[in-house]
Amino acid sequence: MSTALALLTFGPDGAADGHRLVDPEVPQLHVTELAATRGDGVFETVGLLDGRPLKLARHLARFAESARMLDLPAQDPSVWSAALHAVAALVGPGDAYVKLVLSRGIEGGDTPTGWAFATPHPPFDDVHRDGLRVVLLDRGYRHDVAQTSPWLLQGAKTLSYAINRAVYREAARRGADDVIFVSSDGYLLEGPTSTLVLRRGQSLVTPRADLGILAGTTQAEVFEWAAGEGYACSAELLTPDDLAAADAAWLVSSVRLAAPVSAVDGTPKPVDADLTTAINAHLRALAG
Amino acid sequence: MSTALALLTFGPDGAADGHRLVDPEVPQLHVTELAATRGDGVFETVGLLDGRPLKLARHLARFAESARMLDLPAQDPSVWSAALHAVAALVGPGDAYVKLVLSRGIEGGDTPTGWAFATPHPPFDDVHRDGLRVVLLDRGYRHDVAQTSPWLLQGAKTLSYAINRAVYREAARRGADDVIFVSSDGYLLEGPTSTLVLRRGQSLVTPRADLGILAGTTQAEVFEWAAGEGYACSAELLTPDDLAAADAAWLVSSVRLAAPVSAVDGTPKPVDADLTTAINAHLRALAG
Repeated sequence: MSTALALLTFGPDGAADGHRLVDPEVPQLHVTELAATRGDGVFETVGLLDGRPLKLARHLARFAESARMLDLPAQDPSVWSAALHAVAALVGPGDAYVKLVLSRGIEGGDTPTGWAFATPHPPFDDVHRDGLRVVLLDRGYRHDVAQTSPWLLQGAKTLSYAINRAVYREAARRGADDVIFVSSDGYLLEGPTSTLVLRRGQSLVTPRADLGILAGTTQAEVFEWAAGEGYACSAELLTPDDLAAADAAWLVSSVRLAAPVSAVDGTPKPVDADLTTAINAHLRALAG
Repeated sequence: MSTALALLTFGPDGAADGHRLVDPEVPQLHVTELAATRGDGVFETVGLLDGRPLKLARHLARFAESARMLDLPAQDPSVWSAALHAVAALVGPGDAYVKLVLSRGIEGGDTPTGWAFATPHPPFDDVHRDGLRVVLLDRGYRHDVAQTSPWLLQGAKTLSYAINRAVYREAARRGADDVIFVSSDGYLLEGPTSTLVLRRGQSLVTPRADLGILAGTTQAEVFEWAAGEGYACSAELLTPDDLAAADAAWLVSSVRLAAPVSAVDGTPKPVDADLTTAINAHLRALAG
């Protein structure tokens, strides 16, 4: 189990122009770093399956979109990709992930801070088999808030994730493992670190990406694959009733892959073991 | 202009038990620090007027309440006070502030991270004289969200402040200096880093603290003083119409003190120069 860290270097336009490998055990950030004092930056977490990144281009596209929403300098994806591959090569065999972070930098300065950090993670075999007990929690925003109030940054993957952590503590208090957010006007949104997918017969559906949620990189890949397998795939406005009526549900993400939902607010939900296995086998085969 | 930094040390129960002074120019935080990756922590910014902290006890009480809302370990305020005074003594004469930060620490660990950072700031004479042009921006949440959905952490002063920074960029795009948040159901809330105070004749009013906003440390002090000066002071449910009808308005905070509002969404608002001067003279006299 080894970790690896690359710090990005930046040109005068605020775009990263290279990276240098540094010791991940040595502190690298100042206390005036706006990532640490304001959560003022964006990130992506890219799964590595035996060292190969999962759908890196999709992650880099979303990273660029998050940066744009926060008025951060535009970045050259090839520079970030090089940093990712450099740390991926050092983290060794087995499953791991790389976190890419771009922040506004040190307060009062005009240079961003950026890093790529790779770390191994244990397998998720138990979750893939047994599933997740989820609870539905109010996200507080209407489903159209991304259109009416873009300064609320809904749909950007920001470093301001205190709420995304707090809801896991609330889930644990309710005896659950994970969370599905619901808009204040009653629409299913997403997990704190994952995308919701429902199966209705031979159809897969996910909440529409214009609801102020992240465009799921792994969900998009699953839908492309599933369409080829004969599933009708679509993004819709969905409600908790749709979740209750669905034949099966998953929370999908780049590191944990497709994790079946085994209960919603204490009501058991059947786990679709065959489709879970097929999806995750596809995702594992795909990395590269 | 010098800065000063103290890192808190922590006992096995997660409570700070001391501090050590370190070089603020040297990086102190790891990239796996949850303050930097998740905005997962709380803070207070305490104004120093010629080296003396403004209403420190109120700040430490609010710091404790924020920590409680995020399920962070309880802290001994005297330990944090000692760290604050240590850096305050090093920052030199003139106006400054100390930022106190408590985060959940390094990911996967069980020890918080904490620091006290002191830095000088320029005077706010221009703002106190000319006032702030503010815009009203939707905060996206209903006025009762702190009661219905405490996991949204409204009312805690967290490190997840990307929205509080984004709204300043939106204000600048609209030709304004600052922001007053409005709930999705139409109630005035607070500024991104300040508390709203309105004057109606011989009354001062502020939005109720149960609206998912911060209990203003400086506003509380202003109201105590103003009550002694013959003002009727109260906390109410207020709307934009109340702001429009008010004789004067301020955004008050621990560093900038009472800053008058000179315009709301482009409509000029009279600046009450006499009361602004009196409030700020009181606050300056009070520090200690």
